[in-house]
Amino acid sequence: MAAADRGPAPTTPAVAELVERHRETLDTALAAITARDYWSPYPEIPKAYGESAAAEGKEAFDALLGKPFGLDQPGTDGETGGEVSPYGTELGISYPHADPEVLIGAAVAAMPSWTAAGPLTRAVVCLEILARINARSHEFAQAVMHTTGQAYGMAFQAGGPHAQDRGLEAVAYAYAEQTRLPRQAGWTKPQGRRDPLVMEKTFTVVPRGVALLVGCNTFPTWNGYPGLFASLATGNPVVVKPHPRAVLPLALTVRIARQVLTEAGFGADLVTLAAERPGEGLAKVLALRPEVRIIDYTGSSAFGEWLEANAVQAQVYTEKAGVNTAVVDSTDDYAGMLGNIAFSLSLYSGQMCTTPQNLLIPRGGISTDQGEKSYDEVVADLAAAIGGLLGDDTRAAAILGAVVNPGVAERIGQAVDGSYGELALTPRTVAVPEFPDALVRTPALVKADAAKPDDEAAFLSECFGPVSFAVAVDSAADAVELLRRTVKEKGAMTAAAWTTSPEVEQAVVDACLDAGVSLSLNLTGGVYANQTAAFSDLHGTGANPAANSAYCDAAFVANRFRTVQIRRHS
Amino acid sequence: MAAADRGPAPTTPAVAELVERHRETLDTALAAITARDYWSPYPEIPKAYGESAAAEGKEAFDALLGKPFGLDQPGTDGETGGEVSPYGTELGISYPHADPEVLIGAAVAAMPSWTAAGPLTRAVVCLEILARINARSHEFAQAVMHTTGQAYGMAFQAGGPHAQDRGLEAVAYAYAEQTRLPRQAGWTKPQGRRDPLVMEKTFTVVPRGVALLVGCNTFPTWNGYPGLFASLATGNPVVVKPHPRAVLPLALTVRIARQVLTEAGFGADLVTLAAERPGEGLAKVLALRPEVRIIDYTGSSAFGEWLEANAVQAQVYTEKAGVNTAVVDSTDDYAGMLGNIAFSLSLYSGQMCTTPQNLLIPRGGISTDQGEKSYDEVVADLAAAIGGLLGDDTRAAAILGAVVNPGVAERIGQAVDGSYGELALTPRTVAVPEFPDALVRTPALVKADAAKPDDEAAFLSECFGPVSFAVAVDSAADAVELLRRTVKEKGAMTAAAWTTSPEVEQAVVDACLDAGVSLSLNLTGGVYANQTAAFSDLHGTGANPAANSAYCDAAFVANRFRTVQIRRHS
Repeated sequence: MAAADRGPAPTTPAVAELVERHRETLDTALAAITARDYWSPYPEIPKAYGESAAAEGKEAFDALLGKPFGLDQPGTDGETGGEVSPYGTELGISYPHADPEVLIGAAVAAMPSWTAAGPLTRAVVCLEILARINARSHEFAQAVMHTTGQAYGMAFQAGGPHAQDRGLEAVAYAYAEQTRLPRQAGWTKPQGRRDPLVMEKTFTVVPRGVALLVGCNTFPTWNGYPGLFASLATGNPVVVKPHPRAVLPLALTVRIARQVLTEAGFGADLVTLAAERPGEGLAKVLALRPEVRIIDYTGSSAFGEWLEANAVQAQVYTEKAGVNTAVVDSTDDYAGMLGNIAFSLSLYSGQMCTTPQNLLIPRGGISTDQGEKSYDEVVADLAAAIGGLLGDDTRAAAILGAVVNPGVAERIGQAVDGSYGELALTPRTVAVPEFPDALVRTPALVKADAAKPDDEAAFLSECFGPVSFAVAVDSAADAVELLRRTVKEKGAMTAAAWTTSPEVEQAVVDACLDAGVSLSLNLTGGVYANQTAAFSDLHGTGANPAANSAYCDAAFVANRFRTVQIRRHS
Repeated sequence: MAAADRGPAPTTPAVAELVERHRETLDTALAAITARDYWSPYPEIPKAYGESAAAEGKEAFDALLGKPFGLDQPGTDGETGGEVSPYGTELGISYPHADPEVLIGAAVAAMPSWTAAGPLTRAVVCLEILARINARSHEFAQAVMHTTGQAYGMAFQAGGPHAQDRGLEAVAYAYAEQTRLPRQAGWTKPQGRRDPLVMEKTFTVVPRGVALLVGCNTFPTWNGYPGLFASLATGNPVVVKPHPRAVLPLALTVRIARQVLTEAGFGADLVTLAAERPGEGLAKVLALRPEVRIIDYTGSSAFGEWLEANAVQAQVYTEKAGVNTAVVDSTDDYAGMLGNIAFSLSLYSGQMCTTPQNLLIPRGGISTDQGEKSYDEVVADLAAAIGGLLGDDTRAAAILGAVVNPGVAERIGQAVDGSYGELALTPRTVAVPEFPDALVRTPALVKADAAKPDDEAAFLSECFGPVSFAVAVDSAADAVELLRRTVKEKGAMTAAAWTTSPEVEQAVVDACLDAGVSLSLNLTGGVYANQTAAFSDLHGTGANPAANSAYCDAAFVANRFRTVQIRRHS
């Protein structure tokens, strides 16, 4: 059913205009989440935004630096800030700090007209917010780059159009779920020879309450937009608590959302920013508020588990840590496989929740189109492939980005010190003339043996950042069992395997279905285990300890609203 | 899309036969949950099951009494029992008591083939279980009657076909949600002048883990089947922990389910019975097991809240206590309104989670088609209507059923003692010649004043059983606000209102949308606030403290499974 046929009619000319403008995009998104083929309304090529867009984006970003970030929201009781770009400069932006009491009160006060607006109006308002964000993708790219350390190209794509895709996907799912029941239905129950019982029933979507988005350091928009837009599209106001190191991308998002909401005739306080003071622990305070009924969180397992155990008044959607594992059994494209793995390990310095950490390689070697390769040869060839990929500093910097925070830098140091084991590939420092203070390091590849308990202790802990383990295992079967155990015990956002054996492939597939992790098989080209595409790929499964939900499925949105039924005699 | 077009093909002739047998029912159920008109495949009229069915059901029930309940399941380490019919006789049935460790281990062991079977096979196996239960509706009616105290007619309908409807509804929702994603999809991403990226993706539903059903005393099948069938249909084995006073209806259900599962080629241990010893607290033990990932519970708020706070490894669906409220403002059918309320308060002695408890009546009186009626007149007329409805002992017994347990008997005693306030209607004891030991009492109607704090303390507590409050309020507006506050603070499964004023109606509707409770408006005929019809009416909203979920919507099923994606180059 087309979007226009469902939901209450728009209530104002402004909203009617938004329906007109975004109806086709919404309809296409609704079709896309069913078909799962490639689709995106937001071009991922920077040049698609115009010749001068990059420069204008940079200019807009520069204009934000070194001054207060204007955000006219209630409850401001001071300011906070302190972001430092992983590329070396202090942003010098101060954000309003809000009294949580006032912020939540304002969110609650803004709810009624947003609730009454219904699914279609909410969807097109969300699409307008996304469209305005999209138009400023270059500015967002700068903001993402200088808070996460992503290189510009990646910050543009992952922080811009791809994040917007995930937001739109959530809006489409939210709209679809909210319109499964008819708004009105007749009910006629025969009563034998007597008159039938005839009732008229209406079904109205009501929101849960205040939603809290707890943003992360590395992908503030990509990981933030699904929850933000799923909650907003289902009628819930959203309090955005960004990571203290990555406030700007979400602050820009909040400002745009408030602007669009106001123009459409709704309360700006449906979306507010809760920037925190150093050490304030604001997420804990907000998470336990009784008005907060939905929480979206990406970050450490420790705090994610704390939220799950303590914020029991809320629906809690978490993405936490995991140990992503790949089985390297055999391949008919050895060079393609090495190139694909090398890029996966290098992209954004392994600072993705989806980067493979452990490569399980039979100690007896693997079969390839280039003949049998021993474990040592595979490891050496992979190290060489990474070295080749990152041999040129300019190219290396464009792939690696910068080290996002001191925790990652520390782990690189430990790898170099040999704390994780013997290095097959030693990180080198990449010079970035444009940003001399940026810490850019190539990945470390550690040799490990599954049979050695000390090694296992190292590679079975999440080692977030550019440190991967080439783990020698006895056989493909052992690799499959280690994959299964790792996912069940430690969690994983991704799994990968390279094999030409139908038996090994089936065993890996079975292990992934059993342990609950999505699998990329035999990738040798321009698709990487650590990248997922909205409208087609699910991000995470929610079936293992790394996350309790996925982007995006019905379960991610269906419980963000409830349905109230009114019935009467006809 | 028709059921036959989705899901993996049946794997055995037995399953193929079930698909053939139940496909049309599944398709019709899928259409029904979208259309929300009246529909049921299970006749609610006892005679529809044949002339001799009632006698045969009685005979089958009698054959169960006074002996061990045969159930060949693993881990039996003793027996337990002790059910006493509210109609006065000991059932004398002993059930196997199982070691929870063994039971859960057996459930886990039975999962793989059930997971692999896919949504369509699981749906038709569930429909076959329901069909076998349906064929024995008269036997179930006896079992429900003699564990819950429902009169036979109600035990037949609510414990039989209506419970089966709710089970089938859950199966349909489960099937629909599991088949939203295609099993397989192609993905082609253009790459400018280069070859496009082409991937092939599969999406496979995997279950959460072991599901625990914690049954209730009053509606073991009606409140048990939605969770049981939603979990089973989404691939999860179900451990059924019945209420110690109402084991038999669920024990019969488990035995039938095990039989059907075995015949269809699956492990019987996908459904097991966990009958508990007195004071064992087995639900707590089971609820905290790490393998238990889904819990469905109906019962006291205290234990429901304990589950929500402690069983954080599981998805917990709870239906707890509430204070159902009705606004009595005005009517154009005074007699119809009084009759409708009288029946609502009397049905099953108010022992329904949906029975109105508080009737809010303006102290200045109400307008009716029979002229203005003072508060005292309305109360007296309602008392008279109840008295008239229940004047004949045979009819009274058929409506009231028996008092289900000592807690309800105690509250009736307190009402008679005047502990709740002045009585407008004093309960009388109804003699049931067939069951001389049954405790059958007509409802108590207590006069209360919203302005008096002592009164408020009484009527704002859930008083489960045949005790209702006629609460004098200052105005319709005050009634609406008290309704809103009651639902928000105490929770409610139902709300009702009688009014001829469009303004008051709108205010009540707004309050119900705000507080999150479904509303029945101006009921004067054969539809009652405390009854909901599957496939059309939602039972509960999940939006107020009385319950965190509803029968049945997508949110009730969508998170009982997860989706694992496998992708590869085409």
